[in-house]
Amino acid sequence: MVLHALRSTDCATLTEITRMTGLSRPTVEGVVEDLVAAGLVAEKAAEEGVARRQGRPARRFRFRAEAGHLLGLEIGVRRVSALLADLDGRVVGTQTRDVEETAGADERLERLRTAVTDLLRRTGVPRSSLRAVGVGTPGIVEADGTVRLSTALPGWTGLRLGERLRRSFKCPVLVENDANAAAVAEHWKGAATESDDMVFVLAGLSPGAGSLIGGRLHRGYGGAAGEIGALHLLGREEAPETLLSTTDRPLQPLDEQAVAEVFALAREGHRPARAAVDRFLRRLVHDVAALVLALDPELVVVGGWASGLDGVLEPLRRELARYCLRPPRVALSVLGEAAVATGALRLALDHVEKQLFTVEGTVTARR
Amino acid sequence: MVLHALRSTDCATLTEITRMTGLSRPTVEGVVEDLVAAGLVAEKAAEEGVARRQGRPARRFRFRAEAGHLLGLEIGVRRVSALLADLDGRVVGTQTRDVEETAGADERLERLRTAVTDLLRRTGVPRSSLRAVGVGTPGIVEADGTVRLSTALPGWTGLRLGERLRRSFKCPVLVENDANAAAVAEHWKGAATESDDMVFVLAGLSPGAGSLIGGRLHRGYGGAAGEIGALHLLGREEAPETLLSTTDRPLQPLDEQAVAEVFALAREGHRPARAAVDRFLRRLVHDVAALVLALDPELVVVGGWASGLDGVLEPLRRELARYCLRPPRVALSVLGEAAVATGALRLALDHVEKQLFTVEGTVTARR
Repeated sequence: MVLHALRSTDCATLTEITRMTGLSRPTVEGVVEDLVAAGLVAEKAAEEGVARRQGRPARRFRFRAEAGHLLGLEIGVRRVSALLADLDGRVVGTQTRDVEETAGADERLERLRTAVTDLLRRTGVPRSSLRAVGVGTPGIVEADGTVRLSTALPGWTGLRLGERLRRSFKCPVLVENDANAAAVAEHWKGAATESDDMVFVLAGLSPGAGSLIGGRLHRGYGGAAGEIGALHLLGREEAPETLLSTTDRPLQPLDEQAVAEVFALAREGHRPARAAVDRFLRRLVHDVAALVLALDPELVVVGGWASGLDGVLEPLRRELARYCLRPPRVALSVLGEAAVATGALRLALDHVEKQLFTVEGTVTARR
Repeated sequence: MVLHALRSTDCATLTEITRMTGLSRPTVEGVVEDLVAAGLVAEKAAEEGVARRQGRPARRFRFRAEAGHLLGLEIGVRRVSALLADLDGRVVGTQTRDVEETAGADERLERLRTAVTDLLRRTGVPRSSLRAVGVGTPGIVEADGTVRLSTALPGWTGLRLGERLRRSFKCPVLVENDANAAAVAEHWKGAATESDDMVFVLAGLSPGAGSLIGGRLHRGYGGAAGEIGALHLLGREEAPETLLSTTDRPLQPLDEQAVAEVFALAREGHRPARAAVDRFLRRLVHDVAALVLALDPELVVVGGWASGLDGVLEPLRRELARYCLRPPRVALSVLGEAAVATGALRLALDHVEKQLFTVEGTVTARR
């Protein structure tokens, strides 16, 4: 309670803490002393002006957000990225590295480790200061951090990702599906700060989604909730490579660059490109509609591809309004490419807050 | 706590209640006295044998489940039905009445009122004994019991159903979507007693669904979760009348009888009928797959139509295993036609239990 009170203000005197917590003065004194010894609280140097006006000023204490650090990691198809933050969740450094799409698990993880090492060195934060690490990655992730299925990354299916990463970090490592992490991120400081019932759609060749219900992440019974991209398989419909092709042949290679070109051509009025984009949008609208009909969220946030998404919003709104019984609001991602790592960071922060502020099994503070 | 302890056993002595609750003997004596005065607890007559063996036997008390009653009502397309139960949820009487599909709201509600009046008279339960009424009905139902949208029943969209029914009952009336009520029922005493993460699919011409997440009903932000039947509209696909027709013309009228005939013909090997049933199953599989991909439940329970459902299970299992990343178990409804009214009854029971067993804002008992 004392720590929570101190964290919610810039700094406070013992009298102020006593008032904020409702605890007795001797209790507060004892707890503050313990927290100072544990390195979580520091006495603030008296300000000159205050000292002169009031004689001996009351001692002021502050939460030491720098007493520990958190990492939010994204392991994606073409890049790995890391966010480093203090115990207030304030980001103190970021690092991104490109990875070959075809890189195997070992190479990808090595790239991630290097990125983290660079980031820690550059910010001067010792590895021992890390309290928790969150990770967002494509695929169905089990509770222990094993990737049950991931078609996007080579060698990813079956990987004991949590176990592998725990060798690099002595603190807890929490692994989460990328769309789930992005949903958490947009709710924390993106497009969904006002909505506890939202779906984040990671638009792409095979869209995935994460959803919050009543402010809590809905992972599903086996961690597979929101994997809506598989739906089109049922209709034996066209594969994305064909769907977005402007010729008779599938797009080769099917990467973000090739897709961006199709979207750009469509904007310039190229007719086959516009037809391809229309086909893509129809598929996306159908998948999002399935999510909306199943879950009935207040808000749908669309993110993922940087390119082309500006054209997605209007058709999505129009078609959802036409076919959904209670159409949700639709917004673009605010966090963009940072969404997954930001959500992973928030998951790490949740974990640490639970440790710091939990009293006898009761969580007394969240955010 | 005393009431909860007494309800969980057949009957108990003051000493036993003291042990079960951890309360002091004087407190238990006082509370039991109050509960007897309130009519919720009765002293049990001493058994002959016991009295003789032990001299003066300890007084025994029991929960008076007959101290109040609950109704679970279904208002459907072709019938209304009512379940009457005591405070233990034990059903003491049922009543069902047919209604014309074309009947307006007034006529349908009048039919329901008559059914309830008959049921109360037949069982000798006074109307004043009713503590809560649950109602299940097709459509999107808002929190206050207003039907936001219902295409199945004439005059139902916009009906203030909760308000209308509260005129007939002095106790709380809780209105719920029919598939949601059925999900609650199968979880209570049907096919899903072992699963807290389940989807109930009310198979029909336009399937609806209700889902439990962590044992709690997921209604969605606006009460529209699970209305998956609207999905086929997006693909501009065939309407059910065409889908299930064995000729060039749509099925007219499209009712359960006509549909049952098509299923029967298909079982006899009639080729156009088999093709029609195949089309219907493909649609159903697609809709259920959308729900499963969005929610990732442990279990899918299929109910609704009495006819034809036996042929649904195998294709559904096969196709879900093929296309879902983590296929759920699939089971048929155990409660069948009683599912909706049974779920409505459970909702009424939940409400009363919350009142009876809630102490200072904390629910101490559920079921």
